[in-house]
Amino acid sequence: MRQAVIYAPGDVRVEERAKPTILHPTDAIIRVSAACVCGSDLWPYRGAEPVGDPHPMGHEYVGIVEEIGSDVRTITPGQFVVGSFFASDNTCEICQAGYQSRCVNAENVGANGAQAEYLRVPLADGTLVATPELPSEDLIPSLLAASDVLGTGWFGAVAAEAGPGKTVAVVGDGAVGLLAVLAAKQLGAERIIAMSRHESRQKLALEFGATDIVTERGDEGVAKIKALTGGLGAHSVIEAVGTQESMMQAIRSTRPGGHVGYVGVAHGVELPGTELFFAEVHLLGGPAPVRRFLPELIDLIVKREIEPGKVFDLELPLDEAAEGYRAMDERRAIKALLRP
Amino acid sequence: MRQAVIYAPGDVRVEERAKPTILHPTDAIIRVSAACVCGSDLWPYRGAEPVGDPHPMGHEYVGIVEEIGSDVRTITPGQFVVGSFFASDNTCEICQAGYQSRCVNAENVGANGAQAEYLRVPLADGTLVATPELPSEDLIPSLLAASDVLGTGWFGAVAAEAGPGKTVAVVGDGAVGLLAVLAAKQLGAERIIAMSRHESRQKLALEFGATDIVTERGDEGVAKIKALTGGLGAHSVIEAVGTQESMMQAIRSTRPGGHVGYVGVAHGVELPGTELFFAEVHLLGGPAPVRRFLPELIDLIVKREIEPGKVFDLELPLDEAAEGYRAMDERRAIKALLRP
Repeated sequence: MRQAVIYAPGDVRVEERAKPTILHPTDAIIRVSAACVCGSDLWPYRGAEPVGDPHPMGHEYVGIVEEIGSDVRTITPGQFVVGSFFASDNTCEICQAGYQSRCVNAENVGANGAQAEYLRVPLADGTLVATPELPSEDLIPSLLAASDVLGTGWFGAVAAEAGPGKTVAVVGDGAVGLLAVLAAKQLGAERIIAMSRHESRQKLALEFGATDIVTERGDEGVAKIKALTGGLGAHSVIEAVGTQESMMQAIRSTRPGGHVGYVGVAHGVELPGTELFFAEVHLLGGPAPVRRFLPELIDLIVKREIEPGKVFDLELPLDEAAEGYRAMDERRAIKALLRP
Repeated sequence: MRQAVIYAPGDVRVEERAKPTILHPTDAIIRVSAACVCGSDLWPYRGAEPVGDPHPMGHEYVGIVEEIGSDVRTITPGQFVVGSFFASDNTCEICQAGYQSRCVNAENVGANGAQAEYLRVPLADGTLVATPELPSEDLIPSLLAASDVLGTGWFGAVAAEAGPGKTVAVVGDGAVGLLAVLAAKQLGAERIIAMSRHESRQKLALEFGATDIVTERGDEGVAKIKALTGGLGAHSVIEAVGTQESMMQAIRSTRPGGHVGYVGVAHGVELPGTELFFAEVHLLGGPAPVRRFLPELIDLIVKREIEPGKVFDLELPLDEAAEGYRAMDERRAIKALLRP
C-alpha cells in the first residue's frame, strides 16, 4: 500500500509499504477514506522535534472497517468509523472519567501512520465510533476533523469551561483554534474573541461564531483582551499553539478564577510558579480525550448542525502528501486533507 | 501600641508603634484578640525572600471591633470578627465569583501588621465576618485558624475537588496541610493520605481525618501514592508547601483528569510544560479567597463540629513573638499563637 513516511525535517515521501494486518484480537484494519496533516506533524517537519529513524506519519483518520480481530464486538466490517489518535479501551477508570487519551492501555495510533491506504487501529471497540450510516461524500471532511482538530478544540473549550454568559478568548488561529471557536459557540458562549492576524483565518473564525477579532499578540494582545472585558480578562481562554508566548498570553488573558484550556502540544514551555500562583486561574490541558466527544460530534455533523470540515482549504491525493506539509508549513493552507 | 517588626532575617522585634487610625471611611480598627505566625512569614525570616526596610509582620487575626469608618454598614463596634489577609470589597465581579483574594480593590492587610495590639482593616464590610456572639475563650484559636490556615487548607481541598468517593493526598504537614486534611474530611473524602515524616504532625493528621500516612517524599512518595491507588494516582492532591519538589510531587501523585489544589506560596517554582501537558491534571491555586469560606467555617467552629485551633501547639504573649518565629523555624512548633 501507499504510505507517507518522514525521513528528515522537510522530507516527507509517499512510498510502498506492507499493508497492516491484525496483530491483536482487539485490532481492526480500516481502509482510510481520508487522512490529513496536523499542526503537530509540523514540529518534526520543521526540525523542532527530532525525527529519528524514518517513520510513518499521520494520526487523523476516517475510513471503512475492512477486518476485525476475534475479540472485537461493537465494530463490524463495512462500517464507516471515526477514531482518535490515542487508542483507548474506554472501560478503565481513567476512560470512564472521560480521559481516554490517558487510558491505562492507551496506544499511539499515529505510530502506525494514518496517512496511508490502510491503518491498524488497536482496541477497536474502545477507540472507533461508527456513523449511523455510510456518510455522503461531502460529510467526510467534517468527520475527519472530528478525529482530532475538532475533538481537540472542543476539549479546549470544555477545559476552559466555555458556556452561557462567558466571554471566551482563543489564542491560536490554526485549525484547532478555529474549531475551538466553533466549540465555544456550540457550548453557548456569549462572546468569543479570536486572536488572529491572518485575514482568511479571521474570516473562518467569524463564520464559526467569533464575535470579536484581536490582531495583537503577547502583552499587547493581553491588554486588548483586558480592554474588551472591563479590565478583568476573559472567563475562559483556549490555548491552541503550545509555545511559551502563547501559554503566557493565555494565562494573562484570563481573569482570576477563570479557566485556561490548553491543547497546543507544549514545546519549550516553562510556567513561572509565582506568576501562576498569583494569576489564580484554573488550568487544564493535554492530549484531548477525543473519544469522549466523538458520539456527540458525529451526531452534530451528520445532522449538519456544524461544518468543521471548512478548515480543510487544500485537498490532495495521498501521493502528494509532501505538498500538503509544505503548504501548511508556509501557511498557504490552514489544513490539508489527503485522499488515499 | 506593641507590634512585631522584622528588621532582617532572623531578627523580629516587638516595639512601640503608633496605634492605627481610620484612614478611609470603609476602614475598621480592631483590637486584636489573637494573632499568629504563618509558614509564609518564615520565608523572609529565613532570608528566602528579601526583607527590605523594617516592616510590621502578621496577617492572621481575630479581634473586637474598636472603631469603624463612616461608610461601614455591616460591622459594628464591639463585635468579634474574623478577617482575611486580603481585604476585599466582596461586591466586584471577581469577589462575586468567589475569588475575593483577587478582588479588583484587594489590599494586603498584612502590610499593616496583625502581630500587634490593634489593626486597621480596609474594606471592613467586605473583609470581616462577625461571630454570632462573643465567642468563649477556648474557641479563639479555632477562629484565628479560620483567618488563614484553615481557610487556605479549605481552599486547597475545594480547588482539588476533594469530596465523596475521592482519594485525596496532601503534600505538606504544616498547619495548612494538616487543615487541608480536616477540610477534605469535612468535604466527605473517602480516603485521605497525609504525607508527613514527623510523628506529632502525623498524629494530628490522623485526628483530623487522615486514613493513611506516607512518609516518603519526592519520587518515592509519588510511587507510594500510586501503589495505594491501583497505580493511577489520587483523584485530588493538595499542595501546601510551595517548592519545586512539592509541586512536582503533587502533580505526579495525581491521576490523569484529577485535580491539584496548590496553596503553598510558590518559591522558585518552574513547571515543565511538556510534563504538565501529558500529566493532564487540573491545576488551581493561589492566595486563598478565605472570605468565601468564612461564614461556613465560623459556623462549623462555633457549633464545635471542627477544632482547627489544635494546630496551635505554642502560645506566647505578643512580646515574645521572636520566640514564636524561632520555634516554627526550628520546627519545634507547628504554629505559634500570639496574645497581645
